Amino acid sequence: MTITSSDQQTSGAARTIISIDAMGGDQGPAAVVAGIARSAAKNSEIGFIVHGDKPVLEKLIRKRKLQDVCEIRHCDDVVTMDDKPSNVLRNGKNTSMWSTIEAVRNGEASVAVSCGNTGALMAVSMIRLRKLPGVNRPAIACLWPSRNKGGFNVMLDVGADIRADETDLLQYAMMGASYARNGLAIKRPRIGLLNVGTEEHKGRAELKAANELIANNAEAADIEYVGFVEGGDIPSSRVDVIVTDGFTGNIALKTGEGTARLISELLRAAFKYSPLSRLAALLSLSSMRRLSKRIDPRRVNGGVFLGLNGTVIKSHGAADATGVSAAIKLAFTLGQSGFSEKLAARVASAATAPQDAPELGLLASGNEE
Amino acid sequence: MTITSSDQQTSGAARTIISIDAMGGDQGPAAVVAGIARSAAKNSEIGFIVHGDKPVLEKLIRKRKLQDVCEIRHCDDVVTMDDKPSNVLRNGKNTSMWSTIEAVRNGEASVAVSCGNTGALMAVSMIRLRKLPGVNRPAIACLWPSRNKGGFNVMLDVGADIRADETDLLQYAMMGASYARNGLAIKRPRIGLLNVGTEEHKGRAELKAANELIANNAEAADIEYVGFVEGGDIPSSRVDVIVTDGFTGNIALKTGEGTARLISELLRAAFKYSPLSRLAALLSLSSMRRLSKRIDPRRVNGGVFLGLNGTVIKSHGAADATGVSAAIKLAFTLGQSGFSEKLAARVASAATAPQDAPELGLLASGNEE
Repeated sequence: MTITSSDQQTSGAARTIISIDAMGGDQGPAAVVAGIARSAAKNSEIGFIVHGDKPVLEKLIRKRKLQDVCEIRHCDDVVTMDDKPSNVLRNGKNTSMWSTIEAVRNGEASVAVSCGNTGALMAVSMIRLRKLPGVNRPAIACLWPSRNKGGFNVMLDVGADIRADETDLLQYAMMGASYARNGLAIKRPRIGLLNVGTEEHKGRAELKAANELIANNAEAADIEYVGFVEGGDIPSSRVDVIVTDGFTGNIALKTGEGTARLISELLRAAFKYSPLSRLAALLSLSSMRRLSKRIDPRRVNGGVFLGLNGTVIKSHGAADATGVSAAIKLAFTLGQSGFSEKLAARVASAATAPQDAPELGLLASGNEE
Repeated sequence: MTITSSDQQTSGAARTIISIDAMGGDQGPAAVVAGIARSAAKNSEIGFIVHGDKPVLEKLIRKRKLQDVCEIRHCDDVVTMDDKPSNVLRNGKNTSMWSTIEAVRNGEASVAVSCGNTGALMAVSMIRLRKLPGVNRPAIACLWPSRNKGGFNVMLDVGADIRADETDLLQYAMMGASYARNGLAIKRPRIGLLNVGTEEHKGRAELKAANELIANNAEAADIEYVGFVEGGDIPSSRVDVIVTDGFTGNIALKTGEGTARLISELLRAAFKYSPLSRLAALLSLSSMRRLSKRIDPRRVNGGVFLGLNGTVIKSHGAADATGVSAAIKLAFTLGQSGFSEKLAARVASAATAPQDAPELGLLASGNEE
């Protein structure tokens, strides 16, 4: 009864619509629909357009009684994890991934979510949504468990492009700040530029140039630029947003995940070592659950594509219901805040900056390629 | 009594002499001498040349009764953590760091150990020991806790140079293999090249070129080349040695350390949360000690400088007695195995490789700078 009344209330108001690819993940459509069910149970202000095999989806959605919040879009094809992005661009028009992006392009949904092939998702998003005016390279931003009050820092780029020059890094700083404001409710985000040392003379040429560019734009953009940070600072409370190129960011992200995985394996092994440690494990169960909830990669599930006309969230390929639901929650937060429009405005205002510093603009074009 | 007889025995035979900088670390000479004491108590085949402030060192060494295994070299100056490498090269001849390297250069000691400023230590090592013939860029190799039987993988470069082209990466592979053989006793090391994906078409141009170069040289060098690996593979049992440029390696190393530190903080907090969890903490004490011993950064203490005429070990600046002792143990293992000579031979044999593949050699020189 309560659900129905709140449903009516919010369908009268603007329900935030998420376009979701049900097919591309390792766990198949059942996990995606299970994630939808979790989110729908917690939040009556979300609606879904679900893309994929209609007969399969209808059955799953009916079973979970989600017909009222889900609209199904049938698609014959699926993008697999092995499909090459270029091939998907040529032959992928009937895939659930393509259809998912299309609903954002058409304005039917405010955010797209997919667990599919990252390269293909970025390629389709680029082609269909197009880059924001003034953006050279879009970026993927991830959340990183941190010592900050909110529990997370933002890092970008974590793999959209293996290169980034100083103007790209400046844009990443602006886009990351906008994401931190709208996704994490941080009013004046602190930005750090990832490097091998915090001294100003260290690092590659484009990092030194970006260091100046971001510092010069910080006041106008209402961000706090803390300068260079190191790998150890990524989870620190010194910063909210860590800016880096997609090669370095991807290596750092996977290294962090790999380290966390190794430690939790060793932790489990330590607890199984003796009868005493097994008893300890039993007693510390709730403490351990709290810890693992804090660093659970499923809870930080959702790389966000930034720099496009529309917001796209890439969920882990292996995401289960918890992971999908976390990605949906992020999609809802960003969709409701009008993130896409705010980000576009932010980038447009920063795009005027190179005019203030023509010598750096020249340097940038000289470095490209 | 036993100690004396074994002392005589080994001083008659070739005792492995370690040249150690007692001054540069954050914890001062007391921590270094405490580390020496631990190592000396476990291993009677080591001797030390200890560099630093003579009156201070004499007192510390006498207190621990180490006069028989330590020779003191007085130095007036100390390299601080803030000293610029260029400045140390100009004015550092009277520092304990310089003197430490000098003892290896003179053949008095087989390995040098210092907890001091990394940049300065590399600069002094380069100038005094010189690069091995055929080596373009020396590298720093670190140990990484892993799922392999021995418990560690090797990664290089973790910060000697922010750049590396394909021929540098090939040399890193050869030097890393030699280190894994002599330091970790792995007969046929498996080498992986760090990248953002394992597909052959991914990554930067120099990585694709290095991928071919290493594959072509693998058989002659008696290594197993596993191809590209990702950040998550660094602690895996798929590889023994991870090859990357110093920028990426340094970020990965510090990210891994930072993640481990965050998790152990959260773990401690979880154990303090309730009376029940505090009891659990008590019961699991020995399990936790086993775990933390496994991932304790002090135990993997010791970045090894590779590619010079002599072996230099950079210990963590914050190393305590445990950390210093771990670095000494590594120094002893490498010194005793005749690592420097074996590495030189290995690099010399790989240096002939570009002749087999002239087109790649050309590519390399074209890419440089």
